Order: sequence, then structure tokens, then C-alpha cells
Amino acid sequence: MTTTQLAAVPGARMEAEMHQQPEVLAALVDRWPALTAQVAALTEGAPPLGVAFLARGSSDHAALLGRYAVELQTGLPTCLVAPSVATAYGRVPEGFRGWLLVALSQSGRTPEIVDLARRYAAAGARVIAVTNDGGSALAGAAHLSVPLEAGPEVAVPATKTVTGQLLALLAVAGGLGPAGSGGLTQAQAASLPDAVARVLGDGESAERAAGLLAGHDRMAVVGRGACYPAALESALKLQETTGLMAHGFSTADFRHGPIAVCGPDAPALLLAGSGPADADTLDLRAALAARRAPVLLAGTAPEAGLSWPALGHLGECLTATVRGQQLALATARRLGIDPDRPTGLNKITMTS
Amino acid sequence: MTTTQLAAVPGARMEAEMHQQPEVLAALVDRWPALTAQVAALTEGAPPLGVAFLARGSSDHAALLGRYAVELQTGLPTCLVAPSVATAYGRVPEGFRGWLLVALSQSGRTPEIVDLARRYAAAGARVIAVTNDGGSALAGAAHLSVPLEAGPEVAVPATKTVTGQLLALLAVAGGLGPAGSGGLTQAQAASLPDAVARVLGDGESAERAAGLLAGHDRMAVVGRGACYPAALESALKLQETTGLMAHGFSTADFRHGPIAVCGPDAPALLLAGSGPADADTLDLRAALAARRAPVLLAGTAPEAGLSWPALGHLGECLTATVRGQQLALATARRLGIDPDRPTGLNKITMTS
Repeated sequence: MTTTQLAAVPGARMEAEMHQQPEVLAALVDRWPALTAQVAALTEGAPPLGVAFLARGSSDHAALLGRYAVELQTGLPTCLVAPSVATAYGRVPEGFRGWLLVALSQSGRTPEIVDLARRYAAAGARVIAVTNDGGSALAGAAHLSVPLEAGPEVAVPATKTVTGQLLALLAVAGGLGPAGSGGLTQAQAASLPDAVARVLGDGESAERAAGLLAGHDRMAVVGRGACYPAALESALKLQETTGLMAHGFSTADFRHGPIAVCGPDAPALLLAGSGPADADTLDLRAALAARRAPVLLAGTAPEAGLSWPALGHLGECLTATVRGQQLALATARRLGIDPDRPTGLNKITMTS
Repeated sequence: MTTTQLAAVPGARMEAEMHQQPEVLAALVDRWPALTAQVAALTEGAPPLGVAFLARGSSDHAALLGRYAVELQTGLPTCLVAPSVATAYGRVPEGFRGWLLVALSQSGRTPEIVDLARRYAAAGARVIAVTNDGGSALAGAAHLSVPLEAGPEVAVPATKTVTGQLLALLAVAGGLGPAGSGGLTQAQAASLPDAVARVLGDGESAERAAGLLAGHDRMAVVGRGACYPAALESALKLQETTGLMAHGFSTADFRHGPIAVCGPDAPALLLAGSGPADADTLDLRAALAARRAPVLLAGTAPEAGLSWPALGHLGECLTATVRGQQLALATARRLGIDPDRPTGLNKITMTS
């Protein structure tokens, strides 16, 4: 299609960028040895005291997976930076001397992230920038730039840069230490492009699922472990593209309170793959049935309406995330919304 | 009222426990010198490398304020523990040797929290237990027990134990280092019982605000800095007690995507006090007006429909939290729900 034709189909750009994901991921898998070697070289001789992630929005969800991967791979303490401590309250992050800071921004131009990365570097942290623009201000502020090389992303809802970030962070974790109980190997990472392609090849399931959602104005998206970041990201994608009040929850939190929001008019999307945290999510079905809440199941169970291949590792966060993208796209189209340009949103986050 | 009479009025227990908050907080202020001295003694000679918080649900929101307070007071790295890394994936938290772990559970009996506190202690972390039961398993697993002494909490929605946790964590932060740019002094803490009493003395504002909410099934609750934990907690309290799909957001995240969920049918509750992060939240009003979303403003601005006294410190998290409690109680009553016993919820979180 030409650019003009693309613009005429609601969500055509988002869809095209979603379908570039297997290629973007395959290129990252090819770069896996180089990426892990660069991270290893950055920390050689002085292992970090901990790893902090700095991000907002979708990037924050990628950071959450990065955090799991680093802790599983290395046992190091990790945290997601609370930006307001420095930007609103003016605290110098001097306690992060000797830490590794992984700063994420798809554009590499989010002013708050660039500013904070500089403050952490000045305080003695080594900084890795994960961005889609290796020439961006964020990349320039870092000791090591990990460009996603995903190509331009034009649609407002970030898709290929998000799964790119997820895989790049798994590579960063891989460079930080010996294989642990849950970090990914290159061989495991190599299974992801095909797994994501298989999910993308099945758009019909997402269209059927969107039919269930389209009559509702609120829903829960629930997952644990590798599926927890995907639940938060899928909820955000649904919010941005459809205006649905989708709320992401950790399975453990959801069961003990927020489940009260689900009922006949408020469905739940459960994300549950083949990891050790997923049985807990499948167990929610009985409680949701008792509340007569419609349930959409995504994952590796035979009865999942939105399926993905069982991988048995953290990479299922990516397949789950792509299922959420498809659902957001299909639901927006049903509602007559163009997800390429949702009202009132901009591509670059200008928080300061 | 007798116990029988209390049981006959929907939310009577929750309301009674809410009104005990000034007394509970005043007792904690009296204990401030002892609490900070105990924390200082625990860390004397071996300052922690960082401070991790372990919690679920409402306690997790208290932990978020604790995190801000510790970073502002000490500059130390802080994190909220991701429980699944250990409980689902089986990773030993050996990287937390030399850290301080602050474990929170209102009952002190949440099995996942007790188990994890023991694992962190075994890995070489010093553990502080913040709980309402100094004889609980969690208190027994800790090197230092900080009992809230809030008295029995019977209503399912936690209220006085949450504000008790918030103040206890401000005291823990106070014991960890010299006064920084934002941690609380005892004198500042001493302003809180009266500020909370003033909020509780004005239930009418909350009843008027509940009138605005009662026709809606979804809403956003937004805040930044000290008001961010209060936004998450208020959203949870509304979810639990009313079934409303209330979603808490950080102001910075909300503006750049999730604001798409607000409109004529989906109001926003803005929490904005007198701290340095709050102007950003007030600024959202223009964008929400452009979306024709009803706005409830809570805070210290003269036009706030739900007001609290300007304190100029992190303690405004407590006044904001109490406004959220009032709104949840009043909205539940309007909807004919008994918030003392919302359907399907239990008092002790049994996540394992």
C-alpha cells in the first residue's frame, strides 16, 4: 500500500508496525552475542551493586520484565526508579553510585528521562540507554547505547518498539551474569520471532475476542510473573486505542480485592502462559465465574481463545504483549476509532 | 452503639475505624522518638546498602510512600520487592545481603509476606516488620517489630491500619538518617492527627462528591509525589467497596495516554496538595475539560471540593488517603453496598 492508502485504513500503520515485529526481533536475536558482550564489557571488573530501570508508560512495563530477568539471572537488587524523587523533590540520586541504570525511551527524547539519566550518570551510575534512535539525546547521555533498530514507528500506540525493548532487556540481563534460573539464553530468544509471527498470523481470534469486549466500557487484564508486565501493557494499549477503562493487575493483588470490579458488565482478560506463575492466574476462573464475569483467556492452555506457543521462559511476555496489541487494534476498529491517531495523544512523552 | 447496632448500619464498622485514625496517629507520634531510635539502633554501625519494601495491596501503597520518604531522607536506593521472583520462580534473594527489608502486612499473617521475610533474613537482610499485631508470625520473623497498635480492624476495607502504616514508615525513614530534603520531622508528624481529624469532620463534602460518582461505573484517580500512593490506595478502596472500576494513575503517566479513558461518562478524581509535585496534577484540569470529563478535585486549592489542610510535606499522603476512604464509604452507601462486607473478599490475604 502507498502512504495515502495506509492513511485511509484505520489502524493500518499500527497493524503494519505490529507485523514488522518478527523481523525486528530476529535482528535483535542476531545481535544477541554482541549486545551481551557490550553489557559484559561495561560491567567487567566492577559488577554493579544493583540495577535500576528508568522509564515511563509502555517503557515502564518493559522495565518490569527487565527487572525480573536481571533478578533471576544475577540475584542483584533491582528497582524501577521513582522519577518524582529527583524531578519534583530535587533529591540527588547519590546512593546509586556503582549501580547500573538502564534508561528506556522509545524516542530517546523524553526530556524527563534524558535529564534523569544525566543526573544518575553524574552521581556515579553507569548508564545504558535502550532507545529506537541511536543518535538521540538519551543515547548520547549513556555509557552504552542499545539501539532497537526497529525502524520508524509512526502510529501513536507503540508496538514494535515495546517488544523490541522487552527483548533488548532480556539481552542486557543476559550480559550481566551467568545463566540463572530464569534469564534467557540466545537459543531461547531465537524462538521468539517465530512465536510472535504465529500469533500475528492468527488475527481472527483477536477479532472474535474484540466482539466480546466491544459492548463493555471497563475490564480487568490480569497476569503474574512474565505475564504481569504484559497485563499492564495490554491494559495501557486498550486504554490508548479504545478509551476502554482497562485496568492491569497482578494476579495476586487482583484476587484479594479488585476482583470486586468484575461482573456481568466488566469482563476479565487473563494472560497465562506456561511459566511457574501462570497456574495462579488460571485459578481465577472459578472466582470470576462465580461473579458471572465474562472471561477471555489468552495463553498456552488448550482452551485459550487467544493462544500462543508454550515457550516455558520469560519470552512469553512478548507473545502475551502481542496478543494485547491485536486485541486493542481489533477493538478500536469495531468501535470506529482510528488507533493510529487516538484523540489527544502525542508520540513523544513530554513530562518534565 | 452496641455491636448489634453497628452491624445494622452499612459501613458502620468502616466508619468507626476511620474515625479512630486521629487517635491511632497521635499514639504513633508519641512513639516517634522511640521508633526512630529503634531503627537507628538496628542500623547503627552498618548503614544499609539499600531499603526494600515487601507488601501486597494497600500495604504496597504505604510502601510506595515509604520509598519516597527513605530516598528523600537518605538518598539510599530503594525498591518494592517483586514477590514472584522468589515465590514463583524460586530465586534466592542473596543480593539483598546488607539491605534493610521493611515487610508490611496489616494482619502480620499474609503467608507470602511471612515466607519472603524469612527468606530475606536468611539471605542476610535486616528485617523490620510493620504490622498491627506485634505477636504475629511476621513480627516474629523480623529483627525489629514496629506494631501499629491501631486496635482490632474488623471492616474488610483497611483504613486505620493503612494510615498507621503510612505514618510508621515515615518514622522508619526518620530513623535512617539525618533530616533530608523531604523526610518528616516529629514536629511535622505531629500536625497529622489534627489534619486527619479536620478531614473526618467534613463528611458532607464526600457525600456530595459521591453523588457525582454514583452514576458512573468507571473513573480515574490521579496524583503525583506524595499523592501518588494515595491515588492508588483510593482507587483500590473504591474498587473494593463499590465495585467501581477506579484506576489509579501517576499524573505523568496519565497525561500521555490513559487520559483517553476519561470523558463525559468517566470522571477523574485529582489529588493535589501543596507539595512540589502537585501543580502538575492541577494542570490536568484543562485537558480533562477539553474531554468533557467531570473532575473531582481533592486537596489544598481553594476550589477543591474535597479539601485538606496544606501541610507542605509528605504527610499529605495521609489526608489524601482519608479523603479517598470517605469517598469510598459514601459511594458504597449510595449504591446500597455494605462496605464492611463487600462480596467475595476476605480480611487476610492468602496469596502463596
